[in-house]
Amino acid sequence: MSAEDQPQDSGRRRRRERAAAPAAPSPLAQPVSPFPPLELVSRDELESIHRTALTVLEEIGIDFLHDGARALLKAAGADVDPASTRVRFDPALVEAQIGLAPREFILHARNPARHLAIGGRRIAFGSVASAPNAFDRAGGRRSGTIADYRNFLRLGQTLDSIHFWGGYPVEPVDVHPSVRHLDALSDMLTLSDKPIHAYSLGRERNLDAIEMVKIARGIDDDTLEREPSLFTVINSSSPLRLDTPMLEGIIQMARRNQVVVLTPFTLAGAMAPVTLAGALAEQHAEALAGLVLAQVVRPGSPFVYGGFTSNVDMKSGAPAFGTPEYMKTAIVGGQLARRLSLPYRSSNANAANSLDAQAAYESVFSLWGAIMGGVNFLMHGAGWMEGGLHASFEKMALDADLLAMVADFLKPLRVDDAELALEAMREVGPGGHFFGAEHTQSRYRTAFFAPMISDWRNYETWREAGSPTAADAAGRVVAERLAAYAPPAFEPERREALEAFVARRKAEGGAPTDY
Amino acid sequence: MSAEDQPQDSGRRRRRERAAAPAAPSPLAQPVSPFPPLELVSRDELESIHRTALTVLEEIGIDFLHDGARALLKAAGADVDPASTRVRFDPALVEAQIGLAPREFILHARNPARHLAIGGRRIAFGSVASAPNAFDRAGGRRSGTIADYRNFLRLGQTLDSIHFWGGYPVEPVDVHPSVRHLDALSDMLTLSDKPIHAYSLGRERNLDAIEMVKIARGIDDDTLEREPSLFTVINSSSPLRLDTPMLEGIIQMARRNQVVVLTPFTLAGAMAPVTLAGALAEQHAEALAGLVLAQVVRPGSPFVYGGFTSNVDMKSGAPAFGTPEYMKTAIVGGQLARRLSLPYRSSNANAANSLDAQAAYESVFSLWGAIMGGVNFLMHGAGWMEGGLHASFEKMALDADLLAMVADFLKPLRVDDAELALEAMREVGPGGHFFGAEHTQSRYRTAFFAPMISDWRNYETWREAGSPTAADAAGRVVAERLAAYAPPAFEPERREALEAFVARRKAEGGAPTDY
Repeated sequence: MSAEDQPQDSGRRRRRERAAAPAAPSPLAQPVSPFPPLELVSRDELESIHRTALTVLEEIGIDFLHDGARALLKAAGADVDPASTRVRFDPALVEAQIGLAPREFILHARNPARHLAIGGRRIAFGSVASAPNAFDRAGGRRSGTIADYRNFLRLGQTLDSIHFWGGYPVEPVDVHPSVRHLDALSDMLTLSDKPIHAYSLGRERNLDAIEMVKIARGIDDDTLEREPSLFTVINSSSPLRLDTPMLEGIIQMARRNQVVVLTPFTLAGAMAPVTLAGALAEQHAEALAGLVLAQVVRPGSPFVYGGFTSNVDMKSGAPAFGTPEYMKTAIVGGQLARRLSLPYRSSNANAANSLDAQAAYESVFSLWGAIMGGVNFLMHGAGWMEGGLHASFEKMALDADLLAMVADFLKPLRVDDAELALEAMREVGPGGHFFGAEHTQSRYRTAFFAPMISDWRNYETWREAGSPTAADAAGRVVAERLAAYAPPAFEPERREALEAFVARRKAEGGAPTDY
Repeated sequence: MSAEDQPQDSGRRRRRERAAAPAAPSPLAQPVSPFPPLELVSRDELESIHRTALTVLEEIGIDFLHDGARALLKAAGADVDPASTRVRFDPALVEAQIGLAPREFILHARNPARHLAIGGRRIAFGSVASAPNAFDRAGGRRSGTIADYRNFLRLGQTLDSIHFWGGYPVEPVDVHPSVRHLDALSDMLTLSDKPIHAYSLGRERNLDAIEMVKIARGIDDDTLEREPSLFTVINSSSPLRLDTPMLEGIIQMARRNQVVVLTPFTLAGAMAPVTLAGALAEQHAEALAGLVLAQVVRPGSPFVYGGFTSNVDMKSGAPAFGTPEYMKTAIVGGQLARRLSLPYRSSNANAANSLDAQAAYESVFSLWGAIMGGVNFLMHGAGWMEGGLHASFEKMALDADLLAMVADFLKPLRVDDAELALEAMREVGPGGHFFGAEHTQSRYRTAFFAPMISDWRNYETWREAGSPTAADAAGRVVAERLAAYAPPAFEPERREALEAFVARRKAEGGAPTDY
């Protein structure tokens, strides 16, 4: 066990003071839900799910495919089977880790105006991430390239309702894996100034990502540890297993107080029980297993509870998203996250192959479940298609509009004398028209949300214009945005230092690819 | 003032005993929301909107374009201007009518299995109504005909998530207006057995509709008055005006204890203030004006509070639906309805010209606002397009799927030992797969909602199948349903009596068309 695998604060771990809710860090408005999150299961039922997860952790256990992780857990008191990778947890050990991670924290961007508050009633919207294929109407569906990757960064940078990068929007498979993270993160930190994600693909990549974000933000190690500046999504290899690079990621990121978003991939009927309560119990057990490790590594390190439980099409085995089952688990996932006093991650998901009505209704159903369930951290918010198998430029633009509409819906409704408009109603009177009223004239230009995509022209005008669909309108937005893109300001010395770091690490051969 | 315009129970009106929630009348499951309705404005803000509406009614007043209605209101104590059509209301007179109408009631169908409970947490989904144009992909957009009208009835009859007819799905403009209601209602009562709507288009049509539904249900006058068997939507001619046929409808329907759904058409910036609080205050004033008249006519007659407030596109003046503004007013509309202890009507609306992503996202946003706002009576649930200007066959099928998904989402999540699946997790263990488990095998066929439209095939299979969109899939459903349609059972003597009634009324010349 290496020195860095030693638990920090071992033996004097304590329940941390919960910081007060951080102030809104960003002049770019981040949505705040005015609604208490919905509850689909009762308090007793929630406790049943929680207790089932504790029983799973105690009796069945989790396979931790990483020697260091098992050593850390053993030192913390877990029951580590010496003959296998299995780790079992006494419920008291698990419960002791609940409440250490912050309820809310700031995820820092290289542009301070882009910092995000994660937790409470606040919501942050992320881009599509990790699609192997890219799609646009001109080029069709193809394997991701660095050129597509960069265009997604440019497009997403211009869309204000995308608050952070959930990962690589598309995998740039034409860049060698040994140096892909160097090019991709360098591009992300240069072409955009929004908060970023780092893939947990082994120790070297994790450390490179941490160095790169330090350089881009111009901060030292102490500041980095005070100010979480990147996050990593940890997917368990469901059922009940965490693999080597994921565990390496938890250890590396938690140790430096960076953000771990643990998301079990619990598709009911495949990697999880076919019943939603069972799939949620498994999700909860896996999330708790990750939480325990992260809090053993560094008590109080920021941790987000991820929910991704959905169902599969039992005819084909294909994953389904935006279904009634997905909505239910999105709601209960939020209840489970709050049970652990953790921020909650969900997704804007759909399984459609093209940007049709299905793509839209599955997306809005996903958003409905996530938003009403109390999501704080929305992954795949813009551009995700086909169950994650392709990232679509047009869907990114359309989703950005959907996210902006959701954000506008969540704004408070003002009720005061001016808004109640009694004087205007007196002026107009029965049978009149409000357009000419001063009350209207002084407000109409900004009174309503103005979408990018929605086409409200009358039928005849619309048909004369060629009967464009929303996908056509989205294509127009994509082209306009890419044409108008200008890179965000980047301090030259930081940019040069970042380039130098990448050049040095490439010269060293990048990262091993045998993970 | 005719005898039937005399207020019933005048002088001995009393706050009626509220009936206990009616039992679920229907073996066809009607959704019940497990969620308390959302609240977007505080109790104080809600009272501000309510008080503003009372001030509008007291100081500005409402134009009632019907002598009999004004006489009824004058007799009830309203301030009726003898020199105009204006009626003003003392707040105490308005408040005295609140609480008389039932919180919940049964809307009866000719098939008792189709009766609907309206109110509480129960939800009923209606068809598209009143579109002047029909659309399908084969025939394009055209003026409504009786042939299209009948096909909508056949299609809607087969779709179980459509619970009632909101009106004529499309206007059969090839049938002369004097007899259109006779043919249209006769078709509706014959080709379908779901609850129906009658348009308030003058006294003769109202009375014909009442007779026809009595015949179809095989009931006498007393039973009709005990068992509301049709409803009429009353749209105010906003701002602050109720026109002659609408007032005739309130009087005729309320007198016979049939259902009045009063829906102000308050588009913010056009017929209502540009501010949402102001538009809602106007909506509330108009709804209260209708409520007062209905309760003066017959205290305790069933009344539904309708919300339809939306915004207009301030560039073109075109109405917009499914917008953030629409969602907000859907939520607050529910709060206002509950303030009056009334069931709440909202709509599944969109302004899209074709069945694309916009049609779907505007629809699901509308449903989100309506359902979370506590809707009981959802108009235009299936088939509405283009701000109501066309009814689409494909959209009806797609919406029926959306409504079924919403209903499934609203079902409780079971949490018990069998659902928590601890034994299945023990059996499968870390790294296993659940498909082969007995727990899965005994449940998977019915575990998940099976949509009609959503296409979850993998990309390659989908492309080989011709890259069908959701609109293509909906077209397939339409064709299959119309081919498989069989008319519902109809007692021959009732059917013959209905035909005889229609024949007699046609021989009499139908209804006057100079309304």
